[in-house]
Amino acid sequence: MADIENKVWLTQLRHLKRLLAANDPTAFHAAFLELHTWEQAQFFLGLNRSERMALYKVLSASEVGDFFDDIDDDEAQLTVFLAEMRPEFAAQMLTEMYIDNAVDILEHLDKATVNRLLAQMPHQTAVDMRSLLHYDDETAGSIMTTEFVAIVAEQTVASAMQTLREKAEDAEMIYYIYVLDEVQHLVGIISLRDLIVNDQTKKVRTIMNERVISVQVTDDQESVAQTIRDYNFFAIPVTDDENHLLGIITVDDIIDVIDDEAASDYSGLAGVDVENTSENPLKAAVKRLPWLITLLFLGMSTASLINHYENLVSEASVLAVFISLITGTAGNAGTQSLAVAVRRLAFPDQERSFVQSLLAELITGLITGVVTGVTITLVVGVWKHNFTLGFVIGLAMCCAIVVANLAGSFIPGLMARLGFDPAVASGPFISTLSDLTSVLIYFSIAQYFIASFVQ
Amino acid sequence: MADIENKVWLTQLRHLKRLLAANDPTAFHAAFLELHTWEQAQFFLGLNRSERMALYKVLSASEVGDFFDDIDDDEAQLTVFLAEMRPEFAAQMLTEMYIDNAVDILEHLDKATVNRLLAQMPHQTAVDMRSLLHYDDETAGSIMTTEFVAIVAEQTVASAMQTLREKAEDAEMIYYIYVLDEVQHLVGIISLRDLIVNDQTKKVRTIMNERVISVQVTDDQESVAQTIRDYNFFAIPVTDDENHLLGIITVDDIIDVIDDEAASDYSGLAGVDVENTSENPLKAAVKRLPWLITLLFLGMSTASLINHYENLVSEASVLAVFISLITGTAGNAGTQSLAVAVRRLAFPDQERSFVQSLLAELITGLITGVVTGVTITLVVGVWKHNFTLGFVIGLAMCCAIVVANLAGSFIPGLMARLGFDPAVASGPFISTLSDLTSVLIYFSIAQYFIASFVQ
Repeated sequence: MADIENKVWLTQLRHLKRLLAANDPTAFHAAFLELHTWEQAQFFLGLNRSERMALYKVLSASEVGDFFDDIDDDEAQLTVFLAEMRPEFAAQMLTEMYIDNAVDILEHLDKATVNRLLAQMPHQTAVDMRSLLHYDDETAGSIMTTEFVAIVAEQTVASAMQTLREKAEDAEMIYYIYVLDEVQHLVGIISLRDLIVNDQTKKVRTIMNERVISVQVTDDQESVAQTIRDYNFFAIPVTDDENHLLGIITVDDIIDVIDDEAASDYSGLAGVDVENTSENPLKAAVKRLPWLITLLFLGMSTASLINHYENLVSEASVLAVFISLITGTAGNAGTQSLAVAVRRLAFPDQERSFVQSLLAELITGLITGVVTGVTITLVVGVWKHNFTLGFVIGLAMCCAIVVANLAGSFIPGLMARLGFDPAVASGPFISTLSDLTSVLIYFSIAQYFIASFVQ
Repeated sequence: MADIENKVWLTQLRHLKRLLAANDPTAFHAAFLELHTWEQAQFFLGLNRSERMALYKVLSASEVGDFFDDIDDDEAQLTVFLAEMRPEFAAQMLTEMYIDNAVDILEHLDKATVNRLLAQMPHQTAVDMRSLLHYDDETAGSIMTTEFVAIVAEQTVASAMQTLREKAEDAEMIYYIYVLDEVQHLVGIISLRDLIVNDQTKKVRTIMNERVISVQVTDDQESVAQTIRDYNFFAIPVTDDENHLLGIITVDDIIDVIDDEAASDYSGLAGVDVENTSENPLKAAVKRLPWLITLLFLGMSTASLINHYENLVSEASVLAVFISLITGTAGNAGTQSLAVAVRRLAFPDQERSFVQSLLAELITGLITGVVTGVTITLVVGVWKHNFTLGFVIGLAMCCAIVVANLAGSFIPGLMARLGFDPAVASGPFISTLSDLTSVLIYFSIAQYFIASFVQ
């Protein structure tokens, strides 16, 4: 949004806050409902506890539920708000929310609180929520909603429209309508567009699309995101392994998945969780220190390796000059290869095996290693008037790059095979590991040639 | 998709290829149209030139256009396919495509070819495409479509539904209907859901939402993505600065924007373009070498700095032992701080200024620096039985971390102010830069204390 709009928006927020503080419920209520639900959520998130308590008194549970649906991040924070409400109010609010969002909040509460809340809901809602609570994190089941519109194939277009009208209020997505047989098998799909353009007397069976693209309830949410992205869907049906329709996943939830995955890949490469950055510098430091200290101890092994070669360094102190150049360049190459490997694993290429990828990375490493090695040989040779020294540095750099490339490419693949998220094999880890191998390669080569370049 | 589905799909592909090769147009045509358009696109992308030429003969321009709409990446590649078609066929296919996708392809063609193709299209299509070609890359205008459904406020719900029925075939998105006044100002919005649930005789004016959230045609596509993500819209209207409706942007195009941005942030941190990775190891090496060689020369400045201190190293070769530990740890800290800064710039926090962020990062750097420094002081002190040496290493590491943290936080902000993409201030750049400052800090401190730790 443009700056000018931001200013209007800030003025609006201040105005609303004044109305709430002035204890003028009618005026506040009217002005608040003028806002889009996402804006209501933003307003709400800017309130302190006592302001929020005032707000719960002015708004109905359904009105609070409407904007709770639009708070995307940090369900843990939402549980704090829930605890501030009267239990009946909280239960009613959750009932009014879209069921997938309500369940996301319930997942962050302890069992006793969940049971207490469910006990105060309409029976069917409580049953639906309980069934959604069973699915594992990050699966299709954990992000789907059960609020879809279903019809049977023998209905006419007119009758399907009538069903739609009745369900439209509660359904999260009414633009795809799912066609079920008598035992809830998903047998077809029809878009609202199809219903509108077709003759009202036609049977749904004759115009529905029978080749339904669906996902399994146990599928990973990332693969669901990929399917929705590929097919440009607004929503996708979720089935069990007998093709019973269990729910649907809408594109707005998929955008959150894509955001989360991107942030976690980025965090892995940086060695810091960029999603939950803290405003408090102390807390930020506490979050970053574990990685730094872990890598520090990994780095100590490099230091003790150099220590092992200390005599070599006292003999030829020029060797110290190139330590950081070799470790740094190999680390850069390893990070490049790591990033490519992680990305490949996220968007797999069926025609290429793990071994083929490693082989390709080996060739890439050899080419970049030789080019970089020859460059540095010439630079050092000219600078130090010593081409033997240049050759030692160049050869070491070439070998260090090849090894770092292979490690960067191999480790994510290995982690994926072991069932870990390959993105966690992060950049700092690879570059610290590559420091160790680079130093080993460097000093081994230097030791071999030491007689010829010390003048 | 599960493995079993992948196998079914591969069998299907092979079957289709055989039908195409067998020159059985009727059978191929029927089997091909069974596929979803995205699957058709995947099949098409797996063909060689002569197979594609056969395909153009079997399918109509409209059928080819349908799946061209579902090829998301690499518009440059699409221009190659376009050149294979007869010009009239190509022009007709572009006409049948969604206009935003067609224009994305035209943008990659030379002016003469564009003019030749437009000349063969219906007049209105050519005019619309020409107007869309004017917008700058990465703006709302460049990704919007003009194929939306518009009505006037005085229409009844029934008449609006009638308009919708007439436009449904051509419109990319029919689930939001835009309400215009007599001079094309956007005055309201109504969802298809609203049309369905409301009484057929009601005026649109009485049920439309007058508070329309829209974006400006010149807005950056990233800010459009943010707005759609925040509000959970399926589409957003695009207006000029006088509030004339120019087009709409749909959520599927926004997912592509989000993907691209995430990939480019990730690429920046890794120093390699992960979006256009090449299958060919030589090409991959050619893409990675520019960064590696640039960083190599930047690293040379670190090497010459160490060279400057070579006498110090020959006096106390133990100093060489800790070079890579200090540069590595500071580099890791700088990368963490860089990633947080880049992420903050993408999701700005209005309440925090650039200076406040720097100050917070300074405090975080001090805390992490002191903790890491004290740790390494103790480790080195015990290991080398020399706590003065430990103190030198610890102090150097602490200072190097603080400086790296500040650089990691300052550089992206500076780049953003200068109008560059902050994500390009990449991880390897920060860690190579931090090598230089770390070495300078390390040897300055070591020189100052040399008399006390050399035993």
